[in-house]
Amino acid sequence: LAYTPGIAEVAKLIQTDESAMFTYTFRRNNLAVISDGSAVLGLGNIGHKAGYPIMEGKAMLFKRFGGINAIPIVIKTQESDQFVHVVEQIADSFAAINLEDIGAPRCFEIEAKLKQSLDIPLMHDDQHGTAIVILAAVLNALKLQPKQGLATRFVISGAGAAGVAITRILLHHGFKNILVADSTGIIHRQRTHLGVVKQQLTDSTNPGQFRGSLKQALTNADVFIGVSTGNLLTTADIKRMNPDSIVIAMANPDPEILPHEAKKGGAAIVATGRSDVPNQVNNALAFPGVFRGAIDARSQITENMKLAASQAIIDYHQRNLAVDALLPKVMDEKVHHFIANRVQAAANSKD
Amino acid sequence: LAYTPGIAEVAKLIQTDESAMFTYTFRRNNLAVISDGSAVLGLGNIGHKAGYPIMEGKAMLFKRFGGINAIPIVIKTQESDQFVHVVEQIADSFAAINLEDIGAPRCFEIEAKLKQSLDIPLMHDDQHGTAIVILAAVLNALKLQPKQGLATRFVISGAGAAGVAITRILLHHGFKNILVADSTGIIHRQRTHLGVVKQQLTDSTNPGQFRGSLKQALTNADVFIGVSTGNLLTTADIKRMNPDSIVIAMANPDPEILPHEAKKGGAAIVATGRSDVPNQVNNALAFPGVFRGAIDARSQITENMKLAASQAIIDYHQRNLAVDALLPKVMDEKVHHFIANRVQAAANSKD
Repeated sequence: LAYTPGIAEVAKLIQTDESAMFTYTFRRNNLAVISDGSAVLGLGNIGHKAGYPIMEGKAMLFKRFGGINAIPIVIKTQESDQFVHVVEQIADSFAAINLEDIGAPRCFEIEAKLKQSLDIPLMHDDQHGTAIVILAAVLNALKLQPKQGLATRFVISGAGAAGVAITRILLHHGFKNILVADSTGIIHRQRTHLGVVKQQLTDSTNPGQFRGSLKQALTNADVFIGVSTGNLLTTADIKRMNPDSIVIAMANPDPEILPHEAKKGGAAIVATGRSDVPNQVNNALAFPGVFRGAIDARSQITENMKLAASQAIIDYHQRNLAVDALLPKVMDEKVHHFIANRVQAAANSKD
Repeated sequence: LAYTPGIAEVAKLIQTDESAMFTYTFRRNNLAVISDGSAVLGLGNIGHKAGYPIMEGKAMLFKRFGGINAIPIVIKTQESDQFVHVVEQIADSFAAINLEDIGAPRCFEIEAKLKQSLDIPLMHDDQHGTAIVILAAVLNALKLQPKQGLATRFVISGAGAAGVAITRILLHHGFKNILVADSTGIIHRQRTHLGVVKQQLTDSTNPGQFRGSLKQALTNADVFIGVSTGNLLTTADIKRMNPDSIVIAMANPDPEILPHEAKKGGAAIVATGRSDVPNQVNNALAFPGVFRGAIDARSQITENMKLAASQAIIDYHQRNLAVDALLPKVMDEKVHHFIANRVQAAANSKD
């Protein structure tokens, strides 16, 4: 039996050097996909048990594209501090943690606390996986259809997990003219009843402090990014944008506007979350490589590693970029290795 | 991608019927091996991180002999209520839970609380896996070397997790004359400073209410079972037992007495936990089949299922039983299937 006494030697080694866990045990390649089932894409707060199959599907993608042994873990409580506590208590069993399908604004607080208390790679994929792929899609679209550089005017529909993370990564890249609208309308400094996270957006977005509806925000916009609800916009709304606009409509299963309607409204480039039309934007393009790279570097996931992942997607796709081929295919296994290597290099660089 | 929308259908199904988790998801065959590293066999309280490789080794045995996907989970806290809370919070991710290497008396309280609050199979293997195999070894030894039936006189050295569980299963089988000794000596009603669990033993064991040391307890004993510390007994101590005694000395890595010394003292049958001498008593003979059977029956693990597991080991080994072959080999894959079927049948019977 491979049990005793050989295994006792590894235990003693870890007692004197904890990092030996990452050399001599399965921990080095085990990742937990953790959720409370509070915001399951397209289904809402369905609870942790019903959320389980989504975590399982995600685990399969981790294995297939990242070579990572991913284990679905659903947690019963939807109380944030308790959730954080449970994750902290089991974290030493894993090399990394992918938080999944946790509702906003709880997801921001939970991720921030866990990044403070844990030293392993941890990421809420609904935020950052999405943001990484969207940034790559935006930068590729702007290669094909250049706008106003860093002054390019963005309108983001949705201020949940994905909307906030997309806004933050666009800001981190250097874009300066971003309007975010939630179901109430454009977010600005005079809006009342804003939570902490939306409040923060009032300082970093909407430099002209516009007020009004999402549709009003679209006037003279260059890029629309929707992470909100289906069938929100019409051809007439897209016509209000600048000519040859870029429309990324991610609502699931029905996008904010269908591609052919957006094109009728003058959009030059359209992308959605759907696999049955060109230009699918799918966070599965990012998370396997990001975690593979971070696990191999034994590093937390930093802002620079996320930007490196976006840039890796762009560089990998350089020769194949086209209006109807904005991003590499998720099923292309090589892209994940390419991203992983770049993310690992970014983790190891001093910047 | 096997991700959306197919997976949403499973999620919706679980929303209306939670048991669909066991039909349509990995949960049905995922088991957690959970420890706080507070009582790792032979190494003591080495902490949860150093305990990890032992959980990993156990996970491999679950896969090899039970066909169960076992996942090592180590929990940071050694505070019992917190530990229970964390396990409760993650339990819906698994079909079953194997508690491992948790110190006494905390292990009793933790297991009792979790059996109350969870409806999946759960077992502290250091207690019950050991007890199941020891009961099989004892009954087989008594077939070869009959003693006084249910009045057979047992001395158990050690009142930790294993000692208490062995005592309980022997009592449950019907044996009536058991003395338990801890490092202070024989447990009896007049002993002070006994914890709750040892206190309970004063009513069910030691019918003559003997007082004294372990060595004094051995006078006229038929069976010695050691789950304590190495090199505790000498040939002279075994001579104090009745002739043709049965000695099961499980201390690890050095047994309470070495086989050749026990035989010099008159022991007819000797077993230990070691693999380098005949008659290894190893809980790996029990846990894969017990959990396989309980998972397939979707039942908690009852006392009758444990007795059925012991009886399965005995029945399986019927034709091969010998003084130097007290138990089947752990590496014999068929024995695990045989146990699993019997345990599943016991779970489904009305008794």
